[in-house]
Amino acid sequence: MNVHKQIEKFKKQHENRGRLLIHCPDKPGIVASVSTFLKDFGANIIESNQFSTDPSGGSFFLRIEFDCPYLVNKMEKMLSSFSDIANQFSMSWTLTRVSDVKKCAVFVSKELHCLQELLWEWQSGELMIDIPLVISNHLDAKEVVKSFGIPFYHIQSSRDIRKQVEQEQLKLLNQYSVDFIVLARYMQILTPEFVEQHPNQIINIHHSFLPAFVGAKPYERAFKRGVKLIGATSHYVTNDLDEGPIIEQDIERVDHRQDVEGLKVIGRKIERNVLAQAVKWHIEDRIIVFKNKTIVF
Amino acid sequence: MNVHKQIEKFKKQHENRGRLLIHCPDKPGIVASVSTFLKDFGANIIESNQFSTDPSGGSFFLRIEFDCPYLVNKMEKMLSSFSDIANQFSMSWTLTRVSDVKKCAVFVSKELHCLQELLWEWQSGELMIDIPLVISNHLDAKEVVKSFGIPFYHIQSSRDIRKQVEQEQLKLLNQYSVDFIVLARYMQILTPEFVEQHPNQIINIHHSFLPAFVGAKPYERAFKRGVKLIGATSHYVTNDLDEGPIIEQDIERVDHRQDVEGLKVIGRKIERNVLAQAVKWHIEDRIIVFKNKTIVF
Amino acid sequence: MNVHKQIEKFKKQHENRGRLLIHCPDKPGIVASVSTFLKDFGANIIESNQFSTDPSGGSFFLRIEFDCPYLVNKMEKMLSSFSDIANQFSMSWTLTRVSDVKKCAVFVSKELHCLQELLWEWQSGELMIDIPLVISNHLDAKEVVKSFGIPFYHIQSSRDIRKQVEQEQLKLLNQYSVDFIVLARYMQILTPEFVEQHPNQIINIHHSFLPAFVGAKPYERAFKRGVKLIGATSHYVTNDLDEGPIIEQDIERVDHRQDVEGLKVIGRKIERNVLAQAVKWHIEDRIIVFKNKTIVF
Amino acid sequence: MNVHKQIEKFKKQHENRGRLLIHCPDKPGIVASVSTFLKDFGANIIESNQFSTDPSGGSFFLRIEFDCPYLVNKMEKMLSSFSDIANQFSMSWTLTRVSDVKKCAVFVSKELHCLQELLWEWQSGELMIDIPLVISNHLDAKEVVKSFGIPFYHIQSSRDIRKQVEQEQLKLLNQYSVDFIVLARYMQILTPEFVEQHPNQIINIHHSFLPAFVGAKPYERAFKRGVKLIGATSHYVTNDLDEGPIIEQDIERVDHRQDVEGLKVIGRKIERNVLAQAVKWHIEDRIIVFKNKTIVF
Repeated sequence: MNVHKQIEKFKKQHENRGRLLIHCPDKPGIVASVSTFLKDFGANIIESNQFSTDPSGGSFFLRIEFDCPYLVNKMEKMLSSFSDIANQFSMSWTLTRVSDVKKCAVFVSKELHCLQELLWEWQSGELMIDIPLVISNHLDAKEVVKSFGIPFYHIQSSRDIRKQVEQEQLKLLNQYSVDFIVLARYMQILTPEFVEQHPNQIINIHHSFLPAFVGAKPYERAFKRGVKLIGATSHYVTNDLDEGPIIEQDIERVDHRQDVEGLKVIGRKIERNVLAQAVKWHIEDRIIVFKNKTIVF
Repeated sequence: MNVHKQIEKFKKQHENRGRLLIHCPDKPGIVASVSTFLKDFGANIIESNQFSTDPSGGSFFLRIEFDCPYLVNKMEKMLSSFSDIANQFSMSWTLTRVSDVKKCAVFVSKELHCLQELLWEWQSGELMIDIPLVISNHLDAKEVVKSFGIPFYHIQSSRDIRKQVEQEQLKLLNQYSVDFIVLARYMQILTPEFVEQHPNQIINIHHSFLPAFVGAKPYERAFKRGVKLIGATSHYVTNDLDEGPIIEQDIERVDHRQDVEGLKVIGRKIERNVLAQAVKWHIEDRIIVFKNKTIVF
Repeated sequence: MNVHKQIEKFKKQHENRGRLLIHCPDKPGIVASVSTFLKDFGANIIESNQFSTDPSGGSFFLRIEFDCPYLVNKMEKMLSSFSDIANQFSMSWTLTRVSDVKKCAVFVSKELHCLQELLWEWQSGELMIDIPLVISNHLDAKEVVKSFGIPFYHIQSSRDIRKQVEQEQLKLLNQYSVDFIVLARYMQILTPEFVEQHPNQIINIHHSFLPAFVGAKPYERAFKRGVKLIGATSHYVTNDLDEGPIIEQDIERVDHRQDVEGLKVIGRKIERNVLAQAVKWHIEDRIIVFKNKTIVF
Repeated sequence: MNVHKQIEKFKKQHENRGRLLIHCPDKPGIVASVSTFLKDFGANIIESNQFSTDPSGGSFFLRIEFDCPYLVNKMEKMLSSFSDIANQFSMSWTLTRVSDVKKCAVFVSKELHCLQELLWEWQSGELMIDIPLVISNHLDAKEVVKSFGIPFYHIQSSRDIRKQVEQEQLKLLNQYSVDFIVLARYMQILTPEFVEQHPNQIINIHHSFLPAFVGAKPYERAFKRGVKLIGATSHYVTNDLDEGPIIEQDIERVDHRQDVEGLKVIGRKIERNVLAQAVKWHIEDRIIVFKNKTIVF
């Protein structure tokens, strides 16, 4: 079964599935209000996770996945009805339909393993996204991207023309109605303007166990320091380099036998898995960002 | 600070903390009913986890931890009031106060590492339980148990006198109002009668990654098979040997250099950690057993 | 750089690199004889690993990787010269040139993730092998194999025509001078005759943590048992199903939220990595089989 | 069996076991010379590991464990005989008897979990060392240390009297002929003079995954940064804080539910295991330090 058929099948299967993501100051009665709201619309809660930072005066976080017959028809009314509850509790919130599959633009440079992992999981139906385009400052990825039937845009980049490059990129993101961006080893720094337009919508993979080895050449520095584990970190991009909210991290054991190239080979597998995991949690609306940290439900 | 003062402090801090554990057939409105119930008693939900096996006609599982002022005074009324909701939804449920610290009897034979881990974590305040007694069919543990100020009972055991031994054990469990039993490498098989009196209240540690190496001498068999990872499994005891609901498992990497004794040394650390983790989840009421499997919230 | 150029470059770089793999009864003087032999041929030891099962009367295992100028010219003489030492110590042994890149046939059925991982690592130069052909009893892999420029052979299979199928397969293996076979989720059982012709030359991936869940449908059985970790195992194929010498195993944590399909998605990543690792160790001559177990240096 | 009997038994069993640790510039013939030397003394190699940083002009590292009848009588002659080989190849080297069990002083402050792990493994015979004394700047450990029958020295410490404190410590180390020092969460900085007298003989445990969170309060900083894994690192102490050669590291997964105290509870298990592993490798002479990194054989 090809990927587009799989996506259609997924949408069909989940046409009545919705997700509610809430973040607000903690006080009694939130869950009662929210669950009564869902009940009144005939929704059945499938999975629910809640977390409070501190019982007295802390922050409240909630993710609910529910089934609701005729969701598409009720959606408008649900949104307006929930606004009242949201106002009452000063909530940040989203209420989305699972069948609105997210559109993801992948940015890549010359290292292709993270891109390939995403394409592969996408093709096998494990990663339920649309990938309307891939953008790169190099041509290395062109062939593989096209072999998956995805438009490839080559936009050469350099420090001097960064703003102009980003104008082109933004135009494409707009044109394809992109929901979020994955930097799959895209070795360029984005401008503050670009980042600010996509809060918690740009996922990066950094090839070290952050906060160790922030910045360039982490494998070289890991080799020099003689660490016994190397890692990778996926995080939302903010304007502080490698300082954004961490979504996922993992490590592998290494020893004295690996040179820098050996570390990179091992590291590539960690990067692939960590990035794919972060994207999966993002598209399932499992992540809430709070104080530059993530709650992953 | 000694352990008994720590427990008193914990009880004081959590005197208004309650836990609700629910398992019932899934249908709409459960969360709304439960959360309205809690709200009506002035309770604030601290942590909530919910899981359904299947949106249409499956099973529903819920764990809620909440804060409720004057909980001790309200408890009786809450219990009776919740009965109505429970009946309506055909729930299996428990509603408990966190300050009712559970009483745990530890059974041990000659291998002491699991017992010691429990005693140690207990003493450092990490394991919030009462340990009113330790029972053993050998004398090896006597000294260490007494050094922690805990009564030690030596009840010799053999296949022929099993029933009689268990009578003595049951009398002690009763006398000390024990809530649950930990078999910390207690190498004796319990009778069906004994097990049936303690459904999901006996936690065992098996020194293999179940279902591999069920039964005796798992390290010897792991060595013979040449596995590259060894493990341990904590599970509730049922009347099928090593077939009870698994609570936690973990593994460590091994290689050709370890002989059986080397595997045992590595294995002991896994056993200690896996058992301690299972006990922690049990006393925090995080475990629901369903179809011989566990949901761990 | 394309993969064939990478292989040529690797051969060039390693034209003087050799590997000696030895297994014999332990007695004093083996290392002295072997290292003197290497020194006399002007070889420099790069990496050496040795292991003895038991100091008194056990088995001795040795792997040496060395650099030797003009190795290609000396090889014949080294082989005959080493025969004398080997006879003296009753050694099983191989002496090979690293630049003789091994030829690997991949057998696959309908699940393609293990095949794809191998092809991908091969293409990126991480897996230094020739893949002269892929054989399948289905057509699912045809397109992807051809996209890598590798001949694909479709040989339909069934229990009744197993011998005839294997005749065709053996003919192809012979025609392409294949050194070893990887069963990348090839869901067919091989005949004893086929297996015996390839001792320790057929690598299988089993989708469970052996010896747990030997045989069919391991993910279904893992789900039913409620394990908290799932795994995969690569092993050499013998005539006892899933009982061959284990090369590598790994696991991932799972919980009550994964259904069987969810376990399979997680499992596929483990399978891919475990199989690729086993193949890597095999082609680097790191594995010695002894008493149905592996020593992996 | 008590620990002192276990140590005596170990010594007896290993009275003919020796270890040779070598580090020198790489050139052909080293292994041949060393193995011929061992053969000439009638020694049989039990385990051997060798590593070279670079085939052409790199560094050579070798660890050999061997059995040699009447080792105690031959030792003097072996040492003098090996000197000639060592000079020829400009080796750094040690040749030791395994039955010379190392004497370890443990330094501790108020956190006792690392000390307790060491004492416990020592008592169970897993850690084959003598612990002639424990030194602390606090009294918290006194009772537990004495319960193991080990002398406890309380030396109050402060920045102002550091030199004087170290004089007392050095005197004790000398008096008890201590071979190496373990800082089991000893929260004091040692003077350069003290460190320089014990090159690669002071093992520290740092409660983070170095080089992340160098210095004070790593768990607090890990919490603030929102990492998804926390770790611990054991390393030899040098005069650069937390910058010494790393021996071992490990991590555990954490999530948004742990506060700082929760991270510490998880972290303590990692610290215990990582430190105990590092000490084990140290006493088995498995570690060679080179360019501020470790080769662990």
